Amino acid sequence: MVTIHDVARHAGVGAATVSRVLSGNGYVKLETRERVMQSIRQLNYTPNEMARNLYYRKSGIIAVMVPMLSHPFFSELVNAIEVSLCNKGYQTMVCNTFYEKNYELRYLEMLRCQRVDGIIFGAHMSLASDQYRSLHRPVIGFDRRLSEEIPFVAADHETGGRLAALELIGCGCRNIVQFGDAEDRVATPSSRRHTVFRKVVEEHGIPCHSYSERQKYSSIDDYDEAVARMFEEYPEVDGIFGTDLYAAASLRQALSIGRRVPEDLRIVAYDGTHLTRFLYPELTVICQPINELAEEACRMITDMIKGEEVLKKELLLPVSIRKGRTT
Amino acid sequence: MVTIHDVARHAGVGAATVSRVLSGNGYVKLETRERVMQSIRQLNYTPNEMARNLYYRKSGIIAVMVPMLSHPFFSELVNAIEVSLCNKGYQTMVCNTFYEKNYELRYLEMLRCQRVDGIIFGAHMSLASDQYRSLHRPVIGFDRRLSEEIPFVAADHETGGRLAALELIGCGCRNIVQFGDAEDRVATPSSRRHTVFRKVVEEHGIPCHSYSERQKYSSIDDYDEAVARMFEEYPEVDGIFGTDLYAAASLRQALSIGRRVPEDLRIVAYDGTHLTRFLYPELTVICQPINELAEEACRMITDMIKGEEVLKKELLLPVSIRKGRTT
Repeated sequence: MVTIHDVARHAGVGAATVSRVLSGNGYVKLETRERVMQSIRQLNYTPNEMARNLYYRKSGIIAVMVPMLSHPFFSELVNAIEVSLCNKGYQTMVCNTFYEKNYELRYLEMLRCQRVDGIIFGAHMSLASDQYRSLHRPVIGFDRRLSEEIPFVAADHETGGRLAALELIGCGCRNIVQFGDAEDRVATPSSRRHTVFRKVVEEHGIPCHSYSERQKYSSIDDYDEAVARMFEEYPEVDGIFGTDLYAAASLRQALSIGRRVPEDLRIVAYDGTHLTRFLYPELTVICQPINELAEEACRMITDMIKGEEVLKKELLLPVSIRKGRTT
Repeated sequence: MVTIHDVARHAGVGAATVSRVLSGNGYVKLETRERVMQSIRQLNYTPNEMARNLYYRKSGIIAVMVPMLSHPFFSELVNAIEVSLCNKGYQTMVCNTFYEKNYELRYLEMLRCQRVDGIIFGAHMSLASDQYRSLHRPVIGFDRRLSEEIPFVAADHETGGRLAALELIGCGCRNIVQFGDAEDRVATPSSRRHTVFRKVVEEHGIPCHSYSERQKYSSIDDYDEAVARMFEEYPEVDGIFGTDLYAAASLRQALSIGRRVPEDLRIVAYDGTHLTRFLYPELTVICQPINELAEEACRMITDMIKGEEVLKKELLLPVSIRKGRTT
């Protein structure tokens, strides 16, 4: 059976490169990509385990719950998860929860009747931990501590918040704004970046204004409205920190009202999705390692399905800063 | 049981508005959105059919095959499909094919052993039509004519191509470029827009340069590289037509080399994904009706699963133009 390692050997690259080519995340030179795709075709590589595994497992299906699949971060994450699960012989079922507890509960109920082998929880609401136990199947949290005993994987958001704060401070910003999480949302590892961001900014004697999302459910218009409100209420802002979507909306509105970026206004984005690659001037971004997060989440859940013990219950992967032209 | 119509009545809006709020596509005023979400919470609305239906069906799962889930068009499409299927009591399984026949064949094989109730084919490669027949379950094509007897749904791409051409011509463009499909890819309804675009441009006595994708698999870097090559080979270009990703890459590069948009260079995008909402200046876009396409595809496949005959085998939904600041 042809594996990803055979493809890598055939193409003369590492398995990580093959994985990057397949997921479409991360830079791979055009020539290398073409060589890898050629090897895939020549070796007739496909996730061959799949059909075989189906005979040994109940369903071969793993469910992934996210707030909204059309959000760039979650679409890239689920894309990478699908690739990784497919390579391991599993199929991916997606569930959108719209940041709503109702949906999450209903999906849980449904998954209880459904024959899925495991569940990756990337949704954002909080349920009692016995809700997860009662599923009687492997569960992991993505960016979310579901209970003491349920393993989770997340990016090192504290470092992310610190890097962002230091970048804006280093540029001389004195009027800093961050777009934060809704206050009534459960504390996730990712919300730690906001706490740390504020702490670092204030330690430098600079006030930090936080704008919370007014609601749990977010469409594109929410970002635009929140940013417009911020510019109105706080016109002296000279440094902005927020997810890619907030940062992109801030950049667009800043340019449209004639603010010069980065001369008068600095922006640091958080996530590092494809969106940030299409903007001008290019955003400075704290990048989450989306592929690696997906890879580790899939490794954890499939290990658990195979009955193996997950030794490291909390896995934090490093973030990185990609300097653009907005700082 | 609470239905989407109860929510609509409770919130004093139409069911289509509730659907728009849930999918996050299309503009809904903040107040209306909040009212709808409040009704959802108050009525404890969830896709209630789901659990019940599971007892009557083999699996309650419908597979959706797309080239790449992280592509904004497909992430928004699959998001809307998940919402619609969920409302109808089905779960969504996603399959990425990476524009590769290998993958598509393997998924077909797997779906044959798997208990999925139906398949929506949004992938782009071409298989013999008996491959689909041998699945022995309901199948529809998304943007793709799989065989004479298999129904499909698509946007009215011919009108889309015509609108784009007329927009650029109307702006006085004399050196027009379009980014087209790979030549070796199967002719889909969507590739018709390129044929029509060229025809309309040439009928006005203007030459039309087409750039084909050099390969089937596309990452962000491909768009950047293709656009950079075009600007090098054809610096006199004054009108560009391409999908959102090509248009966004063109806009970014044009600004970075000091081309004035729209004074020296006009751009029309095709698709109308979220990405276009974040760019400055705002792109002029031919919008596909993503929500309605998803809704119709789901209606078709679930009707077929229920044993109902699909009378209209080819469903083309209207596109629209959204004028921005790039024309």
